[in-house]
Amino acid sequence: MEKVNLSDKLDLFEDYWNPKIIGTLNGQHVKITKLKGEFIWHHHETEDELFLVLKGQLTLKLRDRDIVLDEGEFFIVLHGVEHKPVAAQEVHLLMFEPISTLNTGNVSNERTILEPPSI
Amino acid sequence: MEKVNLSDKLDLFEDYWNPKIIGTLNGQHVKITKLKGEFIWHHHETEDELFLVLKGQLTLKLRDRDIVLDEGEFFIVLHGVEHKPVAAQEVHLLMFEPISTLNTGNVSNERTILEPPSI
Repeated sequence: MEKVNLSDKLDLFEDYWNPKIIGTLNGQHVKITKLKGEFIWHHHETEDELFLVLKGQLTLKLRDRDIVLDEGEFFIVLHGVEHKPVAAQEVHLLMFEPISTLNTGNVSNERTILEPPSI
Repeated sequence: MEKVNLSDKLDLFEDYWNPKIIGTLNGQHVKITKLKGEFIWHHHETEDELFLVLKGQLTLKLRDRDIVLDEGEFFIVLHGVEHKPVAAQEVHLLMFEPISTLNTGNVSNERTILEPPSI
């Protein structure tokens, strides 16, 4: 493989809530996405997810509290934990999660991305 | 868990080549370390490793080429691939790798860290 420049990869797309795969290792994916607005409440039955903010401010709503992440901060949502990402302004996000992870977790609807593209 | 601020965690230590665990998910560790100077040639029998540069410039020497990583760039060293990290100046590094990963891989010597601390 070649090295990956995060900024260059982020320049390749403008759509929101549409994760892109930028690395694969040990059965895990490294993904990036741009977010703006509200996502849906969901959880993942077996997969833990790491959210690292590269730009902007992301609020991860949990059922009992809000986690506010600024640039250079991450949070790990353990499997089974309901969460809802909210981005008042545009957010650039890096995620580490198992290959099997669906963006909408236990929910299947029009926002579900079954096969995220590799870029 | 609480959120993790990478800059705050990096302020907690000054030693080189001594990885610290800052997150655990899906059988993987998120680690940070500071590097300066040369490490040793080694490989990992089963573990792939991701190296993301947070500050400085890291050269990952492979047997057939050098990978030069600047801030915001990562490289995945697949299992079995010999590598030697070199940091001419101080580098701050984030790593994502299986819990079983030893810093010196197949080599056991005075630089081996058997149980990296969590910070």
